[in-house]
Amino acid sequence: MPVVETLLTPALFDLYSQQLEEKNIVIIDILRATTTICVAFENGVNSMVPVGSPEEALVLQSQGMIAAAERNGETVAGFELGNSPQEYRADVVGGRNIAFTTTNGTRAMRLCSHAANVYIGSFLNIDALAKRLIEEGRDTILFCAGWKDKVNLEDTLFAGALADRIKHVFDAGGDAVMLARDLYEYASQDMIGYLQKASHVQRFKTLHVESDLDVCMQLNISTKIPVFENGVINLPLNESAHH
Amino acid sequence: MPVVETLLTPALFDLYSQQLEEKNIVIIDILRATTTICVAFENGVNSMVPVGSPEEALVLQSQGMIAAAERNGETVAGFELGNSPQEYRADVVGGRNIAFTTTNGTRAMRLCSHAANVYIGSFLNIDALAKRLIEEGRDTILFCAGWKDKVNLEDTLFAGALADRIKHVFDAGGDAVMLARDLYEYASQDMIGYLQKASHVQRFKTLHVESDLDVCMQLNISTKIPVFENGVINLPLNESAHH
Repeated sequence: MPVVETLLTPALFDLYSQQLEEKNIVIIDILRATTTICVAFENGVNSMVPVGSPEEALVLQSQGMIAAAERNGETVAGFELGNSPQEYRADVVGGRNIAFTTTNGTRAMRLCSHAANVYIGSFLNIDALAKRLIEEGRDTILFCAGWKDKVNLEDTLFAGALADRIKHVFDAGGDAVMLARDLYEYASQDMIGYLQKASHVQRFKTLHVESDLDVCMQLNISTKIPVFENGVINLPLNESAHH
Repeated sequence: MPVVETLLTPALFDLYSQQLEEKNIVIIDILRATTTICVAFENGVNSMVPVGSPEEALVLQSQGMIAAAERNGETVAGFELGNSPQEYRADVVGGRNIAFTTTNGTRAMRLCSHAANVYIGSFLNIDALAKRLIEEGRDTILFCAGWKDKVNLEDTLFAGALADRIKHVFDAGGDAVMLARDLYEYASQDMIGYLQKASHVQRFKTLHVESDLDVCMQLNISTKIPVFENGVINLPLNESAHH
């Protein structure tokens, strides 16, 4: 059986980096980068380019892209878009290319860009993603972006929810994936209620973006699986074959 | 209110190292280093010196100490003692000084040696430890030794059990301590049953030391709190004042 592991924070990446070119990776930044990416692709964005800094996003903006930048939960001053999924409406992003930078998610993607496939995961596309991982049957790492290298509840919860959906065909590789699955079992009856105590949900309250939590916890409103490859996130050409 | 944080693996130490000289640390290596230390002090050992390598332990052995060394769960060939608490009987360790090295616990202790107090924690002394942390009221870090820098279930479970016992007087600092507390709540009705799936318990089965798990999960058979200070673990002179 293939093995599924959970990487709880980017700070532990080196422990999981062996033979990455043969493995599938799921990037997880539930509040909010990977959720926002799923929303943008559901709403017809053409591509998204994760960059390391707001300055790099501005360079790409000068070449015709939309520039988006978030730090510490807030839109960086002067940018068209931040990191709230509610901003990525079809009339804003449809057909466009977006250069974006976020506190945690961008770094996670760049660390594992040499993996076999780097998938963007969120509750919005969780079942489609589980199906894909099972079909491909590769060893898989669920990569939680965390918060500034620390573990967070929402990414761990999602890793558990996804691991739970594939447990009949994947072996659990190590204790971290069991921990995530048990957290999911503990919280699954009311995930939004459970996450009220999460540090980043507390930050949402300060930033007056509480409604983003409900958006980020929607289950299966998308069957699209964005892929990060050669520095760009898009929907692969064979995507239509899957649906 | 003072704050309690959980450090899930030594690989994340740098994220928690600020102002350590004002904080209490609890070192947690349930299977088995910190449990074995608690057993040794309950059985009258005089002192224990954590060292980085078997070779260092042998140097101290030549000066009259008992040498103990464990790697990957097994006693290193040629050493008097390994890391099983059942070896540390009163007739073996009473009145003696022990130099020891283990896969994970030793490193954790050395990393935080400059903290205000570095306490050795296990289920064997958990309530005494909770009482001490509450009495002292300092910001506290529950430092899980983990397994080769990865998170493990048993240390996280203990961190949750201890955090649960002090939650009425400590604020939760960050998501990791909430994760640990929820894991404890999930597993608390049958911790031994829960830990059957833990990677290190699986290793115990291969090594034929399964009975160590029951020993390591005994609750409150000791009120002694070993302290790591200036490179040595012992019971402080004021220990008797606490009992």
